[in-house]
Amino acid sequence: MQWLLDALERSGSGERLGKQLRFVMELDRAKTVLRRTYLIDGSRLENDGEHMWHVMVAAWVLAEHSDEPVDQMRLALMLAVHDIVEIDAGDTFLYAGAAAQAEKVVRERRAADRIFGLLPAEQASELRELWEEFEERKSATARMAAAIDRLLPLLMNRAADGRTWRDHGVTADRVVEMNSPIGAGSSALWAFAHTVLKEATTSGVLEGGSAEANPDGAGPAPGSAG
Amino acid sequence: MQWLLDALERSGSGERLGKQLRFVMELDRAKTVLRRTYLIDGSRLENDGEHMWHVMVAAWVLAEHSDEPVDQMRLALMLAVHDIVEIDAGDTFLYAGAAAQAEKVVRERRAADRIFGLLPAEQASELRELWEEFEERKSATARMAAAIDRLLPLLMNRAADGRTWRDHGVTADRVVEMNSPIGAGSSALWAFAHTVLKEATTSGVLEGGSAEANPDGAGPAPGSAG
Repeated sequence: MQWLLDALERSGSGERLGKQLRFVMELDRAKTVLRRTYLIDGSRLENDGEHMWHVMVAAWVLAEHSDEPVDQMRLALMLAVHDIVEIDAGDTFLYAGAAAQAEKVVRERRAADRIFGLLPAEQASELRELWEEFEERKSATARMAAAIDRLLPLLMNRAADGRTWRDHGVTADRVVEMNSPIGAGSSALWAFAHTVLKEATTSGVLEGGSAEANPDGAGPAPGSAG
Repeated sequence: MQWLLDALERSGSGERLGKQLRFVMELDRAKTVLRRTYLIDGSRLENDGEHMWHVMVAAWVLAEHSDEPVDQMRLALMLAVHDIVEIDAGDTFLYAGAAAQAEKVVRERRAADRIFGLLPAEQASELRELWEEFEERKSATARMAAAIDRLLPLLMNRAADGRTWRDHGVTADRVVEMNSPIGAGSSALWAFAHTVLKEATTSGVLEGGSAEANPDGAGPAPGSAG
């Protein structure tokens, strides 16, 4: 984007605005990172940009169901930036194996250095700390953010008649296991998710049975797709 | 979504959670509302879900360039919900004529009634008021939100070599006219946008010349596409 650099110089815009705009332009690439979840209408896979928007607004709406008090706006902002690292690191499937998950950690840290590092220092730190807090799940806000980040794909997968679960041979007990972070953030949302999964199993949208049916590997691990 | 209603009833979730989840599921449809702007890589048109995410994060980053003081988080939330009405009302092109724009107002108000109305009353009011504030441009927050909502498509159109402008026969003076809301929010961003447009015209990415070349109608009007 030479035109961007040239325009920054010619307009006499400060270095600070230049850094901010380069970050903003870089964000566009999140729209081309595909996840494993289908849109509810089944037309295509969801991308990271629209996913971050969806969970961000959902978090604002559902914040009150957090078991611990959380700041609604901070929760929303955390979700609005939580997958930006995937611009470089790509999406790691929730049901991927332990080796894939370990690699993911290294890739995502490198991505965070580069992408948040485009911003002026104090903005870079602020967003990076928000992302690290999310990854570490040590605060109430991070636990609620993780709950929303799991709940939405689960509901979307159910709404799209379980296509993602079927595509990847994921069975009910594994879905319950991998989505337990919902319960760590909100017992109300976890109770509801349980009912949805029970119904999905009864109606045949989700296959009951053991985790051995999962071809993508085993072991609890963070990532996308509900 | 009978399964959703059934699960809400069976899990003993309150009516309040039910309303919130119906709204959250409805949001998914914003991902299928296409705008006139291409992604920077030119691969496809942008949708409303990812657009709301992009301008929301951009607003958080660029808030300090507002001519008047604004609350960074409130500005971000305003942009995160500003196009939700297009789920029902569709996207209206920035360069569409006055008749299309008048119709848009009626359609969007009806859409706001229905979609925000899915939420519990006080959440519905909060988001609806934020949307109305955005539409009316009467607050500093709304003016800065409008500035960001114009700036991003303009930069994306430039980055994608002016394809949207060319597709619709939009010329430089018209782009300047329609993007003047950037200046109403931030003189720093408007100065920068001017330099970008001048360069785009010099390099032939944007056609210089009069508004008469625009086949989509005339007259200043709000809407999408930079």
